Amino acid sequence: MALIVQKFGGTSVGDIERIKNVACKVKKERDAGNRVAVVVSAMAGVTNQLVGYVEALSPLNSDEAWREYDQVVSSGEQVTSGLLALALHEMGVPSRSFAGGQIPLKTNHVHGKARIAGIDATEIKKALDGGMAAVVAGFQGTTPDGRIATLGRGGSDTSAVALAAALKADRCDIYTDVDGVYTTDPRLVEGARKLDKITCEEMLELASLGAKVLQTRSVEMAMNHGVVVQVRSSFADTPGTYLVNEEDIVEQKKITGIAYSRDEARVTLTGVPDKPGVAAAIFGPLADANINVDMIVQNVDEIGRVTDMTFTVNKTDLERAVAALQKARPVLQYKEMNADKNVAKISVVGVGMRSHAGVALDMFKTLAEKNINILVISTSEIKISVLIAEEYTELAVRALHAAFELEKA
Amino acid sequence: MALIVQKFGGTSVGDIERIKNVACKVKKERDAGNRVAVVVSAMAGVTNQLVGYVEALSPLNSDEAWREYDQVVSSGEQVTSGLLALALHEMGVPSRSFAGGQIPLKTNHVHGKARIAGIDATEIKKALDGGMAAVVAGFQGTTPDGRIATLGRGGSDTSAVALAAALKADRCDIYTDVDGVYTTDPRLVEGARKLDKITCEEMLELASLGAKVLQTRSVEMAMNHGVVVQVRSSFADTPGTYLVNEEDIVEQKKITGIAYSRDEARVTLTGVPDKPGVAAAIFGPLADANINVDMIVQNVDEIGRVTDMTFTVNKTDLERAVAALQKARPVLQYKEMNADKNVAKISVVGVGMRSHAGVALDMFKTLAEKNINILVISTSEIKISVLIAEEYTELAVRALHAAFELEKA
Repeated sequence: MALIVQKFGGTSVGDIERIKNVACKVKKERDAGNRVAVVVSAMAGVTNQLVGYVEALSPLNSDEAWREYDQVVSSGEQVTSGLLALALHEMGVPSRSFAGGQIPLKTNHVHGKARIAGIDATEIKKALDGGMAAVVAGFQGTTPDGRIATLGRGGSDTSAVALAAALKADRCDIYTDVDGVYTTDPRLVEGARKLDKITCEEMLELASLGAKVLQTRSVEMAMNHGVVVQVRSSFADTPGTYLVNEEDIVEQKKITGIAYSRDEARVTLTGVPDKPGVAAAIFGPLADANINVDMIVQNVDEIGRVTDMTFTVNKTDLERAVAALQKARPVLQYKEMNADKNVAKISVVGVGMRSHAGVALDMFKTLAEKNINILVISTSEIKISVLIAEEYTELAVRALHAAFELEKA
Repeated sequence: MALIVQKFGGTSVGDIERIKNVACKVKKERDAGNRVAVVVSAMAGVTNQLVGYVEALSPLNSDEAWREYDQVVSSGEQVTSGLLALALHEMGVPSRSFAGGQIPLKTNHVHGKARIAGIDATEIKKALDGGMAAVVAGFQGTTPDGRIATLGRGGSDTSAVALAAALKADRCDIYTDVDGVYTTDPRLVEGARKLDKITCEEMLELASLGAKVLQTRSVEMAMNHGVVVQVRSSFADTPGTYLVNEEDIVEQKKITGIAYSRDEARVTLTGVPDKPGVAAAIFGPLADANINVDMIVQNVDEIGRVTDMTFTVNKTDLERAVAALQKARPVLQYKEMNADKNVAKISVVGVGMRSHAGVALDMFKTLAEKNINILVISTSEIKISVLIAEEYTELAVRALHAAFELEKA
């Protein structure tokens, strides 16, 4: 008898009929002889509505405000947990709901983006041992002083994986509105192929690059605690994609997948005096304004006296970044600043890069053949990202997908 | 420095602007030098929506189902508590929210209609002592085994009065969409007058008779714990109506107010054999079906062998009542059953009845003058109720209001 954690996202529990559909999936897993704990998100749209209320009242620039944000926003998952437990009960499946504080799932004090400090699984185990399905409100826990804390958007994934780790579950199934992880976005590339397996490291790169399948922290947690995670569809009854260790991938291709993101904007400062500490002088004001910088490149002119600095920030932060840098101009002494919102980041990802040389070259050649200009390049051990003009996004992704033969299994 | 509990109902917190308006009222009370704890209902419409979800999933015929009902439905007040605390915070009023379980307000196990077992006011006192406004989610508490329990519709009134008792508050202000308790429904009678004071006993009779101002249990609790309660308007800045003890009413009129209810239906069984135990035989099946019976009259025929039994039930229970009695006909051996939904109950209420004779006579005369036929009569120490045809409701209330000179202060 296996113990399985199932997680259902907001679209999967979006209305009463879908909640009934989820109850069927839980029942089916139990009828197959398994013990089941379920983690649920808020019904689609509910969290946005609650966040809207909060933002209408507060700029959320204090700890106190974030505490109340959590008090409000966590209610969406609480509602779904009760509704799913009710649906199960009516199908003859004994069940009970748990809000985060009722488990308790313990967190630190960082309201709005809390990290899990630990899960006391006693009560959930008691429910499972009593033959019940445990239905857990995702996304939330309780601080040491008894306030509700939420785990950040997408936090229900992390709740599910953490619960699977605490229960030593045999598997954690993440049900979502796609039926697995694809070589790239199937809406962009017709030949995009569902992967049977992907390594946690690749998933991490894809998740942080804009393939919105799993919350980054849930993947880290799966990796650290050896939780077997499967991403699968709520709507189709097909196998999904398993997150695995690198050694479980027998035949490695050069590249596993291609991600793209239109969320970034480029900023270039030209003619910055090239002296020690210039990078710190530029990025200090941005860090002070709580702006994350992603890609960074620096060019030195031939004589080596001035430098051009290009980097990317989230589009939503661009205005504030520009303001901060204008303010710092007397110190930075750059010649010009120019910014561009119409850019896209294209990334090829794969642990195969470690053993296959020439991936970067293949990528640059492919883009060059299509006359796509590369603005910025950044790389990690298993990823190469380039910034290009946004209008070439589809063309670039399709060309790279074909060049790396990702449509072939 | 007084300690005041303020309670705001669903209409008063119906949207973000109204929540800000409530925050102003809280701030004003604090600016006057008082310490304030606030109890809030769910935003208007939210509870109905949540109940709708629940009822779409379950007939709510088990304890387990009611537990999940509470898990779902309690979230509405939790949301408002967070939003109001946020609004206060942004106005510079230090504040924090408390869900029922965070206080904790302890209840028994009767989910959906739980009774308060006790309030541990330590944390709320700590917040008040620290200069904060405490914002409490009404309508809810926590059972001994840590499940959320709700107090029944209108339960936030009871939360507020119980909190006022636990904190030994100087006053409990119940803010609502009317500006006090009236001699009768002002929508029906132009001359209806707001009462400055009303006794708890009268308020109890009015509340249970359909004047939907306060939850019955909150009035009982105010009476038992000597809590000073004021019913007042969220929207107008005028004094409301105080609930007082009988000795605080100096000049007693015969009648304090007139209530009406269109929620009841009449059932008459004719020709029931008049033998001992017949009443039990009739009302047993109704009790088994969980149907409350309100007014009851029994007439015996001249010879004393058969009897006619008339009683009222809630309109929503009528169909089930008729079915239960049809099933019991072989035992009851009544001749005919007839039922009527088109009835209204009109009640005159006043502690003055104890010292003024002839109130019943005045009432019956007034109705007779308008040719209104009385179907059923029932009385208590401070109340006389009559059942009449529904179409005469307005006429009866207006005639009685004039006859007892209630428009005069």
